[in-house]
Amino acid sequence: MTGKIICLGLGPGDPELMSVKSHRILTSARQVAWFRKAGRAGQARRMVQGLIHEDARELPMDYPVTTEIPLSDPRYNALLSAFYDDWTTRLSDLARNGDVVVLCEGDPFFYGSFMHLYTRLPRELVEVVPGIPGMVGCWTASGQPITWGDDILTVLPATLPEEALARRLAETDAAVVMKIGRNLPKLVRALHSAGKYDRAVLVEYGTMPEERLRPLSEVTGDVPYFSIVLIHGQGRRP
Amino acid sequence: MTGKIICLGLGPGDPELMSVKSHRILTSARQVAWFRKAGRAGQARRMVQGLIHEDARELPMDYPVTTEIPLSDPRYNALLSAFYDDWTTRLSDLARNGDVVVLCEGDPFFYGSFMHLYTRLPRELVEVVPGIPGMVGCWTASGQPITWGDDILTVLPATLPEEALARRLAETDAAVVMKIGRNLPKLVRALHSAGKYDRAVLVEYGTMPEERLRPLSEVTGDVPYFSIVLIHGQGRRP
Ligand SMILES: C[S@@+](CC[C@H](N)C(=O)[O-])C[C@H]1O[C@@H](n2cnc3c(N)ncnc32)[C@H](O)[C@@H]1O
Ligand SMILES: C[S@@+](CC[C@H](N)C(=O)[O-])C[C@H]1O[C@@H](n2cnc3c(N)ncnc32)[C@H](O)[C@@H]1O
Repeated sequence: MTGKIICLGLGPGDPELMSVKSHRILTSARQVAWFRKAGRAGQARRMVQGLIHEDARELPMDYPVTTEIPLSDPRYNALLSAFYDDWTTRLSDLARNGDVVVLCEGDPFFYGSFMHLYTRLPRELVEVVPGIPGMVGCWTASGQPITWGDDILTVLPATLPEEALARRLAETDAAVVMKIGRNLPKLVRALHSAGKYDRAVLVEYGTMPEERLRPLSEVTGDVPYFSIVLIHGQGRRP
Repeated sequence: MTGKIICLGLGPGDPELMSVKSHRILTSARQVAWFRKAGRAGQARRMVQGLIHEDARELPMDYPVTTEIPLSDPRYNALLSAFYDDWTTRLSDLARNGDVVVLCEGDPFFYGSFMHLYTRLPRELVEVVPGIPGMVGCWTASGQPITWGDDILTVLPATLPEEALARRLAETDAAVVMKIGRNLPKLVRALHSAGKYDRAVLVEYGTMPEERLRPLSEVTGDVPYFSIVLIHGQGRRP
């Protein structure tokens, strides 16, 4: 008997926003893996608290590196690559005992880490269940539609160079900026050059218990990993 | 007693991809409304077949116009505006008897029609439950991640002018093109000028029973309303 490796999109944070399908597979899973920063519980694991079977085998996959080494350093790539190779082998071995579920915040195919296992695994061994992306939970929390009519929506990682951010922000109708963290000062400058600073809304921990929304202009200090900046579209509306 | 008007995001098509929350609210609803093209059952209604209570009151909201009058004609706006005004009143009246659920394909705040009722209703009377957008179901069905690392994702309605489409398609890493229908020939020309025609994948009816995926280059003839074109990002990958 050989099981599958099933990546479950868990949605933005509120466990009730998980799909019926992810919920069904999750609650019957006996092997549960997830990525986390070493030493932390991990958001994905927190979201399934009370939902996974008490006898389930838990498999935290600790990133070997997060921000200690810059992305541009070749060691960063080498370390991560070895880490993904290693877990590809381990999960494949475990799948001989039955299905292994991999937890994923939001949607797996939208900037998710699982794709690095996905590309290393044989296709017939893997299944991916979509989830509501974090940004969808954030714009719902904002109480305003993100796009109307012919609006263009641009999704930008704040890790891009300032100039690129500014140009893209200027040209789009609606925007979602992800991966903010240390890039906040750069993003603020880019929003100013794009003339959109006053329209930007920061959503922290969208749909989670600590959810917090503010105009970006009221933000001082650092923002958490789970932060998104929204610029709402203002398109055609009858 | 006064109920609420609750818009439920139903996800991309497969009813099991609805959130646990939408499912819970849906199955206990006694008043269920949805938009449809006059004379059609409507995709949203089809998705909840077998899930809504047999005594539920059903309220199809028939669009007064879809493609008979061009968007640019002032009568189009006037007709639609009166239609939304009318249903705002009717749903508010019905909410006096208890909650009214409004069904929405995908996510309500992402190019959804519900926003036109939302902006007309008092905030305290309305609730919106997010859903997995159609595009997320489509890229999951495609078996390839849509964005990696620093990829920029641009979401474009195919209703935009050809030049705008071509420029945006050329500049982005990953793209999702929605609302294709009659705009397909224009979109094909725009993809050619952007040099991305060969990478484009067409997904029809993503996650629905009629799901179909093909390279766009293999498509001849018309495509259905539920069609999306994807250009997958190819960003950084350790
Ligand atoms: C590596 S990406 C993963 C995205 C995820 N796969 C998804 O579909 O949302 C992580 C980024 O997602 C954003 N994010 C995800 N969920 C969020 C939430 N509930 N609230 C705020 N930001 C969120 C943050 O910008 C964070 O830096
Ligand atoms: C008015 S928009 C509504 C979008 C919806 N609120 C969502 O979140 O997906 C309608 C367009 O969504 C796209 N769409 C939605 N669901 C789809 C699916 N399951 N398969 C293919 N296209 C879909 C099509 O491009 C269609 O023309």
